[in-house]
Amino acid sequence: MTPSGVITLLTDFGTRDPFVGVMKGVILKRSARLSIVDLSHAIEPQRVGDAAFWLARAYPWFPEGTVHVAVVDPGVGTARRAVAARAGEHWFVAPDNGVLEVVARRSRDFEAREIDVERLELPLSSRTFHGRDLFAPVGALLASSAATLSELGPRTTLVTTTNVPEAVIGGRSAQGVVVVVDHFGNLITNLTAGALPPGGARRVSVLGHDLPVVGTYADVPPGVLAALTGSFGELELFIRNGSAAAVLSAERGTPVGVSW
Amino acid sequence: MTPSGVITLLTDFGTRDPFVGVMKGVILKRSARLSIVDLSHAIEPQRVGDAAFWLARAYPWFPEGTVHVAVVDPGVGTARRAVAARAGEHWFVAPDNGVLEVVARRSRDFEAREIDVERLELPLSSRTFHGRDLFAPVGALLASSAATLSELGPRTTLVTTTNVPEAVIGGRSAQGVVVVVDHFGNLITNLTAGALPPGGARRVSVLGHDLPVVGTYADVPPGVLAALTGSFGELELFIRNGSAAAVLSAERGTPVGVSW
Amino acid sequence: MTPSGVITLLTDFGTRDPFVGVMKGVILKRSARLSIVDLSHAIEPQRVGDAAFWLARAYPWFPEGTVHVAVVDPGVGTARRAVAARAGEHWFVAPDNGVLEVVARRSRDFEAREIDVERLELPLSSRTFHGRDLFAPVGALLASSAATLSELGPRTTLVTTTNVPEAVIGGRSAQGVVVVVDHFGNLITNLTAGALPPGGARRVSVLGHDLPVVGTYADVPPGVLAALTGSFGELELFIRNGSAAAVLSAERGTPVGVSW
Repeated sequence: MTPSGVITLLTDFGTRDPFVGVMKGVILKRSARLSIVDLSHAIEPQRVGDAAFWLARAYPWFPEGTVHVAVVDPGVGTARRAVAARAGEHWFVAPDNGVLEVVARRSRDFEAREIDVERLELPLSSRTFHGRDLFAPVGALLASSAATLSELGPRTTLVTTTNVPEAVIGGRSAQGVVVVVDHFGNLITNLTAGALPPGGARRVSVLGHDLPVVGTYADVPPGVLAALTGSFGELELFIRNGSAAAVLSAERGTPVGVSW
Repeated sequence: MTPSGVITLLTDFGTRDPFVGVMKGVILKRSARLSIVDLSHAIEPQRVGDAAFWLARAYPWFPEGTVHVAVVDPGVGTARRAVAARAGEHWFVAPDNGVLEVVARRSRDFEAREIDVERLELPLSSRTFHGRDLFAPVGALLASSAATLSELGPRTTLVTTTNVPEAVIGGRSAQGVVVVVDHFGNLITNLTAGALPPGGARRVSVLGHDLPVVGTYADVPPGVLAALTGSFGELELFIRNGSAAAVLSAERGTPVGVSW
Repeated sequence: MTPSGVITLLTDFGTRDPFVGVMKGVILKRSARLSIVDLSHAIEPQRVGDAAFWLARAYPWFPEGTVHVAVVDPGVGTARRAVAARAGEHWFVAPDNGVLEVVARRSRDFEAREIDVERLELPLSSRTFHGRDLFAPVGALLASSAATLSELGPRTTLVTTTNVPEAVIGGRSAQGVVVVVDHFGNLITNLTAGALPPGGARRVSVLGHDLPVVGTYADVPPGVLAALTGSFGELELFIRNGSAAAVLSAERGTPVGVSW
């Protein structure tokens, strides 16, 4: 696999302080020609599950040979392991705390390596900022062909810890929950369109409301609650030109039912 | 016109979820050497007029041959058309909902094309995220010379729908409104300096206050309200080292008068 | 010194309006191949001291030959000078208002030049946006080898005005203050680890609390207040998986004591 020259970053560091900028400096110091793309730096602090959800949805849209560095790392500086991995034609670098869980579960061609920090001679300048001292440099090694995946350390299997809830799918109905509230207040569920029976009339219920299933946001008048298959394939609840999260007082974990 | 290799993005997607990152992935997948610049992703959801205002002010500062992709798109997935356009030496890709209105009005050399999605063989993966499935790929086609403007579809004229208010200019006075409140709380009006008579003493009035007209922020003491010609040529109201919006309780639509 | 092709930007412009995007357009217009990295655009308006603190911590992580453009500029358009500088193998472009103070104080090899705007034939389009009209173009001149530092103007010494407070270090104790509250609510002080005696048991006290000193965040149970040496070398107070700033009601200027 040839590196694309692209590295993505996904963290809970925010963009107010220059933590992300410093990670980019470290990457460019190793190879000034790399392109660095922000996936998000607004993961809620320590919400490993949110990072795992979005990383698995976002990475396939990038060029083959892209390196995805994901650092939501409440165990920084402890014995938690750092891993590098490959899913199909993409590489990943992250703490082994579940942030790669959904990528691994969805990929038929996944391998992981435990990063051998001593062998790579990475100077760990701190015990509190491994985004800068470990994950960014290892990402740059892969993206610049300075190291292959197998040179980073021995094969391993990931620890799975996020406990992202899975939907329960029956013969005539399914039960899931809201897993992400997006920027617009849309409620993204763990009910994947591909796991539900195709076609046919459906009813979606949430917090005592029955919602019609439509094709796009503008298929209902402003102010009407409805459901659709979102752009990454999950059942999504919305209110046209408004925030379904605010109107329903719904949040992560709110139960959502589907029947057909 | 030769592409500069630069693409700008202007959306209402926010930066909390990885929507913008995914658009960048799609662009780099088509051409990994392009430079992508964020104009803003914090347009208030569905505020097409704000996007139209800023796009027209920002684009001339970029290299000739830059492609500007603007996606504030409440009608995504409906019959609203997608357009590509050229204003002078810049290209634009956007929904045909008014987001290009101010660019078109200010340019003497403007042409638009209706994007023929079928002819371009774009796989529309979703009906809810055309930033990813339509506008980003078309931007990449133009920026990488993989398509010319005329190959994107037939010539068309834009639909105009934002109704950005225009100032009324008389012999000794003019009446406008606040159109944008910026990050600092400065109030940017639709009173363009070039449309007012040059030189001479002026009085600016807003919400019962008379404001002096000065040259820069530090021309008045801290805490004093005043007006100046802002960096994009509009009359702008400010309070030194503070927020004029907060102090005046002013907002978009607040009337502003000038007399001379 | 050879330019790395990288420019960093640090401002108080926010990212809601396209001010930063326009600065990037101006840079790319002069040299479309430069890589531009955001350090932060969320410095509180006019907080020159915060910009000075972070700039000095962030820049050494970038490649040698990087140009750092820092624009927190309450005196824009007045007689305040614009300067370009070199600290070791890095260049800087900024207003002469203290934003380079910490960089200069920490560097053994620092020189500054007063930017001669007339000689450079920079068209100052505005008196209110020198980020776009002066600092970005000068940064691009340096980063693209179109000008050397000495060609920008005559040698000068910086005006020092931020009054960043310094810690007082005694024989058995030291007294400092919180200088920055980061994204996580961690309290970063002006007590630099290198200035305190190495090793030995220490007690840290803040607002009546005595805090243990540990090695990393996960060394204490969730909810426990503690101190550590942060990733840039300063004593930092935190609460595991929470916001020390919120729990302690601490802020910039809160006194922090250390004894040993």
